[in-house]
Amino acid sequence: MALIVQKFGGTSVGDAERIRAVAEHVARTRAAGDDVVVVVSAMGKFTDDLLRLADDVSPTRPPRELDMLLTAGERISMALVSMALGACGVESASFTGSQAGIITNTEHTRAKILEMRPDRIREALAAGLVPVVAGFQGVSTERDITTLGRGGTDVTAVALAAALKADVCEIYTDVTGVFSADPRVVTKARRLAKVSFDEMLEIAATGGRVLMLRSVELARRHSVPLHVRSSFTWEPGTWIVEEDPTMEEAVVSAVTDDTSEAKITVGGVPDRPGIAAKLFRRLADEGINVDMIVQNTSLNGMTDISFTVAKTDLAAATAACEEVKVEIGAAQVTSDDDIGRVSIVGAGMKSNPGVTALMFETLSENGINIEMISTSSIRISCVLRADRVEAAVRHLHTAFGLDAA
Amino acid sequence: MALIVQKFGGTSVGDAERIRAVAEHVARTRAAGDDVVVVVSAMGKFTDDLLRLADDVSPTRPPRELDMLLTAGERISMALVSMALGACGVESASFTGSQAGIITNTEHTRAKILEMRPDRIREALAAGLVPVVAGFQGVSTERDITTLGRGGTDVTAVALAAALKADVCEIYTDVTGVFSADPRVVTKARRLAKVSFDEMLEIAATGGRVLMLRSVELARRHSVPLHVRSSFTWEPGTWIVEEDPTMEEAVVSAVTDDTSEAKITVGGVPDRPGIAAKLFRRLADEGINVDMIVQNTSLNGMTDISFTVAKTDLAAATAACEEVKVEIGAAQVTSDDDIGRVSIVGAGMKSNPGVTALMFETLSENGINIEMISTSSIRISCVLRADRVEAAVRHLHTAFGLDAA
Repeated sequence: MALIVQKFGGTSVGDAERIRAVAEHVARTRAAGDDVVVVVSAMGKFTDDLLRLADDVSPTRPPRELDMLLTAGERISMALVSMALGACGVESASFTGSQAGIITNTEHTRAKILEMRPDRIREALAAGLVPVVAGFQGVSTERDITTLGRGGTDVTAVALAAALKADVCEIYTDVTGVFSADPRVVTKARRLAKVSFDEMLEIAATGGRVLMLRSVELARRHSVPLHVRSSFTWEPGTWIVEEDPTMEEAVVSAVTDDTSEAKITVGGVPDRPGIAAKLFRRLADEGINVDMIVQNTSLNGMTDISFTVAKTDLAAATAACEEVKVEIGAAQVTSDDDIGRVSIVGAGMKSNPGVTALMFETLSENGINIEMISTSSIRISCVLRADRVEAAVRHLHTAFGLDAA
Repeated sequence: MALIVQKFGGTSVGDAERIRAVAEHVARTRAAGDDVVVVVSAMGKFTDDLLRLADDVSPTRPPRELDMLLTAGERISMALVSMALGACGVESASFTGSQAGIITNTEHTRAKILEMRPDRIREALAAGLVPVVAGFQGVSTERDITTLGRGGTDVTAVALAAALKADVCEIYTDVTGVFSADPRVVTKARRLAKVSFDEMLEIAATGGRVLMLRSVELARRHSVPLHVRSSFTWEPGTWIVEEDPTMEEAVVSAVTDDTSEAKITVGGVPDRPGIAAKLFRRLADEGINVDMIVQNTSLNGMTDISFTVAKTDLAAATAACEEVKVEIGAAQVTSDDDIGRVSIVGAGMKSNPGVTALMFETLSENGINIEMISTSSIRISCVLRADRVEAAVRHLHTAFGLDAA
């Protein structure tokens, strides 16, 4: 008998029919002899409706009140799922984040979990109930309601799975798993049966939209196996597990793409210690997340530093760079929001030196110019013109033998 | 500087525009130098929408989950009102029933308040904030979320006003106060400037729809002055206060009507001790609220017992009477759902013996037959044919000099 945490996202509980389907699936899992803890998001677009209402009543959104407002969505979902379970003959009880013992810091709208005290969840399981827990929310050390930010319901599910020592955390969504590339771009993309935590981290970081980086990191830290699968077809999806040394590793598992970023180049910078530190400290102080960073070898004691940021942060990041320009003695700041990034990810890459060459050859043969390169031990990313990204993904997917038969 | 609890019902926070109007009114109250605690209901028909969703996911509604579901409505209202206050330059913080320290018993969907521990509300007031509290909800001694049943938001407001020793509890609604009769029936009905708690109890009990009996009782017990007024016109409404012995009392303050009840007569009952007790114990066990009870003087050792119940309880009540019929030796059980009740209420009635006579004469002169009579020291109620109720209200309103000039 296993303990399974099942997380259902917004589309999975989007209407009454979907909620009934979720309840029936939980009932089937119970009937198979397993214990289940359910974690739910708000229904479909309900959170967006609440945000619209907030805009209508006030030009500002005090974070404490925004959290109070938004957490109503999961409260509705969890009560409805619990009722639907009752209708399937499964005894259950719903719990808010606070009742489930999810203690966070006081950073409203993006709180971090400080401690898990899921005593009531354990009691409910011991009493034979299926606990239904509101995702995305917790209670702060100041006893205020907090939310965990984007992807917060996955974080709740993984954190609960870790605290309860669950055998698996199942992430139900509207796709059937993690794919070798975005199926909207590559029609021959294949569902991956199994990927390692490290690979999933790179996939999430470079454009895979199924899981957020944060929940994958949490799962890896606590060794919680994840199973990403569909709440529409209920078929087995993708397992995300610890690397298995006995297993032969695919050289490349996935090709990912991301066109949500823009590039900034700070040019003609003196190649002295402390310059990069000043620049990126300033960006960090503005709350701007920097992704890829590339600095070329210095020529005549001068260098260029290029980096990517989310397009939504471009204006603020450019302004910040202009302000430190004089201080760091840079010649100019240029920006470009017409770029995209293509990455290949694979745990087997480490021991296969030919991978980099094949990637560059493939792009070159197809007339695609590479503007920036960055690598990790299991990933290679290239920045390209935005309008060449889809072609690049398709050619790489074929070149690395990922196309479905 | 006074402390004012301001309660806003569902129509008062029905949409973003109404919520902004509420915030502006609270800001005006604060600008006048008073401290304010706001208590809110769910927006307009939001609770009905949630109940429809519950029906769609499950044929049953487990009470614990129903409470969890419904309390989402006030959570949304309170966060939005707090945001709107911020937009008006008023610092505020919202609190759930649990955070406001409203401790209830475990009777889900109709919980009773056991204790008020509004420490966080006091702290917020001391910090110069306007606390915005979710009405209708509390937390049980088992740490579960409960709701207080119909009229629960008024109960929250009055209980908070009592615990905080507020100077007044203002109940904002979509009418401008308590009227001398239902304005839809009597066009010349007048708004009452002031009524006593006792009068308001009788008005609420006999068909006045503005306040529920329960909150009036609570206000009387704790001597919390109530002020019922409109959130659309913001004009002064009706004060409900302790009887003022120096004040000359109106003989009759209001004429009320109620056609929501039906009559049951248990006929040919032996006039022996314990018979009525058996009958009404049985009805109480079925959870049926009995309102007017009339038993005639016995004739030949036999009597008839008539009483009224809500029309929605008629079938269950009739069945229960049929079951005890043999045991109590009754001859027959008859029911009639085509009745209505007209009442006159007035604190000055006590010292005016002519009131009863004038009521009966007025009805008789207009050809209206009286089927049952019951009285208290400040109320006389008559059961009539349902189709004569409106005419009776109008004639009595004129006869007792209540028509507006």
